[in-house]
Amino acid sequence: MAAAAVTLARRIALSGVLFPRSSPQVWGQAARQPPSLLSTQRRAFSNNKILVELDTSSGVATMKFKSPPVNSLSLDFLTEFCISLEKLENDRACRGLIITSTIPRVFSSGLDIMEMCGKSTEHYAEFWRAVQEMWLRLYGSSMVTVAAVNGSSPAGGCLIALSCDYRIMVENPKYVIGLNEAQLGIVAPFWFKDTFVNAVGHRVAERSLQLGLLHSVPEAHRIGLVDEVVPEEKLQEKAVAVVAQWLALPDHARQLTKTMMRKAVLDHMLAHREEDIQNFVNFISKDSIQKSLSMYMEMLKKKKS
Amino acid sequence: MAAAAVTLARRIALSGVLFPRSSPQVWGQAARQPPSLLSTQRRAFSNNKILVELDTSSGVATMKFKSPPVNSLSLDFLTEFCISLEKLENDRACRGLIITSTIPRVFSSGLDIMEMCGKSTEHYAEFWRAVQEMWLRLYGSSMVTVAAVNGSSPAGGCLIALSCDYRIMVENPKYVIGLNEAQLGIVAPFWFKDTFVNAVGHRVAERSLQLGLLHSVPEAHRIGLVDEVVPEEKLQEKAVAVVAQWLALPDHARQLTKTMMRKAVLDHMLAHREEDIQNFVNFISKDSIQKSLSMYMEMLKKKKS
Amino acid sequence: MAAAAVTLARRIALSGVLFPRSSPQVWGQAARQPPSLLSTQRRAFSNNKILVELDTSSGVATMKFKSPPVNSLSLDFLTEFCISLEKLENDRACRGLIITSTIPRVFSSGLDIMEMCGKSTEHYAEFWRAVQEMWLRLYGSSMVTVAAVNGSSPAGGCLIALSCDYRIMVENPKYVIGLNEAQLGIVAPFWFKDTFVNAVGHRVAERSLQLGLLHSVPEAHRIGLVDEVVPEEKLQEKAVAVVAQWLALPDHARQLTKTMMRKAVLDHMLAHREEDIQNFVNFISKDSIQKSLSMYMEMLKKKKS
Repeated sequence: MAAAAVTLARRIALSGVLFPRSSPQVWGQAARQPPSLLSTQRRAFSNNKILVELDTSSGVATMKFKSPPVNSLSLDFLTEFCISLEKLENDRACRGLIITSTIPRVFSSGLDIMEMCGKSTEHYAEFWRAVQEMWLRLYGSSMVTVAAVNGSSPAGGCLIALSCDYRIMVENPKYVIGLNEAQLGIVAPFWFKDTFVNAVGHRVAERSLQLGLLHSVPEAHRIGLVDEVVPEEKLQEKAVAVVAQWLALPDHARQLTKTMMRKAVLDHMLAHREEDIQNFVNFISKDSIQKSLSMYMEMLKKKKS
Repeated sequence: MAAAAVTLARRIALSGVLFPRSSPQVWGQAARQPPSLLSTQRRAFSNNKILVELDTSSGVATMKFKSPPVNSLSLDFLTEFCISLEKLENDRACRGLIITSTIPRVFSSGLDIMEMCGKSTEHYAEFWRAVQEMWLRLYGSSMVTVAAVNGSSPAGGCLIALSCDYRIMVENPKYVIGLNEAQLGIVAPFWFKDTFVNAVGHRVAERSLQLGLLHSVPEAHRIGLVDEVVPEEKLQEKAVAVVAQWLALPDHARQLTKTMMRKAVLDHMLAHREEDIQNFVNFISKDSIQKSLSMYMEMLKKKKS
Repeated sequence: MAAAAVTLARRIALSGVLFPRSSPQVWGQAARQPPSLLSTQRRAFSNNKILVELDTSSGVATMKFKSPPVNSLSLDFLTEFCISLEKLENDRACRGLIITSTIPRVFSSGLDIMEMCGKSTEHYAEFWRAVQEMWLRLYGSSMVTVAAVNGSSPAGGCLIALSCDYRIMVENPKYVIGLNEAQLGIVAPFWFKDTFVNAVGHRVAERSLQLGLLHSVPEAHRIGLVDEVVPEEKLQEKAVAVVAQWLALPDHARQLTKTMMRKAVLDHMLAHREEDIQNFVNFISKDSIQKSLSMYMEMLKKKKS
């Protein structure tokens, strides 16, 4: 485990985009200025899979997933996600974050099955630690976080949305969202479940998880899985307005309140983190699971061709 | 307590219907076959109070309460219920269970007051252990369980419904459902409460339990105490469809997910089981409680005559 | 802390209205009599800030907040509140309590900022202990408690309503209710949060607390923060009817059920009571907090003049 932790740290370090805590001034301390001056206040950094734009005048960053074909959460994607989050978290100019997708019809398809198939146990452990890290950073973020869900969002994609402070989804009869792990014969980890229960309550979560439901947009709205539904062309505007509403509160009070609400669930995961990795590795290494994932991937390949 | 446990085990053993784990083949391994062949694939066993039918082609059993006048949960009823559940649980041909009533207008009237009145403390303890056992087996069942509530369902009757995975109730202005213990001057045990809170949330449970409310069918639907309301003639069909929906999921993933959702409440009860029995025995043995239960029974007798 | 506890006890004793447990007969044992005889069965006691009337025939007391301008919860107010509650709690003639306001448009404005500004740490500790005491007594009251919310009710005022068994609010587009601490740059204590979550669930509480929302009456009704909305002229009548409904249940069963529902949250606070006082004192003593509270008070003064 320690080795895997080092590996993750190394990946982050090697990626070269890690923003050092000691020099926040490069990004930070931008005074608020009128919108007319904004053109020079946009800064962006991009790696392969995520484009990050920070509007230093409003203090709001936007993360755009741009990893074709379906923004699946590979180890590389997760590493880039964690690095970007840490960078923004340490940047005093950034107080809010909007997460959205540039891929048509997909927000994120969830964990990359390729990372769970035919790899070494070390790889599984490293991958799972990265999934945990992503959630720990996002669910515990001190920024205001809004998911602007402009496409389908199953499993791990749904978790990203659930980990934000607010979820806005585009009304489209083709889009679905939910924790559908059970449909694939796997089980959502307890901290996926805890995050889900915190959003929709115990009963809705119990049924939805057991059936591995992917909810239509109106249904997701009705059960509280998303907070608001808008037409595609209003999404960006709405997300900006919601972040602004949340940023109107004093940061300190809002952050302490958020911590108070989420601490129990975060602490519970941290206390069982290594055990959770071990469980994942044992589960995913089983012949029966490997077999069913292989079949699932074959099916996906055939679909494409 | 140990003696009472032995007594329960003996009752189960003596009943002669216990299905031994070592020979599931008698029931099990029936291959799925088209409906036209089904006639030979229905097997039933019945004791005095519950009729159990298993459709080996679909893997769905139906338990029909048939204990006049009101399917009250006597020690005999509970013992038969636990035996039947264990039998089905151990039968590989059985994956789903529908619970319903053959008595008009009543699903189950709840715990049998006769078992709580003028008996020995040993009897009270044995009775309570059987109530606990019923809940432990049903709430923790690995089968898909659907309550097809075709009549009123107060107190312990409501608990049976709450312990299933899904509740369908017949729309009838005369039917009611709820944990109305407080109306009788008694208190629902903490695990009744926990099961209720898991279904309807803390606030609804707090008010409903304190007022001992028996909810009308539309109200029960509105607060989430039942999941769906249908006309009487659609009940069976709907129940079968719901079980089929849940059985479409891989058993293993669905069962692990169910355990994840219910484990905390089940474990909490198991950790306090003996204490809970002692509390019940102490409470029910009080002169004041015995007196008020006697008066209640007198009242019921007068009503009938 | 021990000293502060003594101080509170002394304040209660010195107030002269403390009703001794040993002589409940002065108030108690009034037999139920028909309404026509009621005129002689009303007894009232009043101090500076709260008028208490007990209708011994129905067993229902009414507490009327009468502390201009806005029923803010000063140390004196809280002390009087706790004394009155204890008095009624020990009075066998009293089984129900309605809490309302005589001040137009305000139920209670919440904690008195004057008590938190420019005072000694001993004073802050004494004040906070009194806030805790108020909640412990009200949330844990064995009486049926109904909040008849006839005006706005922010922060601590909202907590009083949340601590009752039932909340009825007057429909008025100008009235608001909510835990808006975050708006003032402070954080609602964990037991405010727990009480709120028990009423409205985790998700609604998370958003409402982080945004410090003051909800309109229809919105408060929709999210479950109030149970019922009535026109001003129906408030008293409705409150009386609700108390009567709850009092129709056997006291013992209702009280034990209430304890079962609220014990976890009450015990959690009691286990961290001194720590919570220390946290409050440390927080409120900070220069930055004192400064922002002073500014807030200046703003309020200017508003008035």
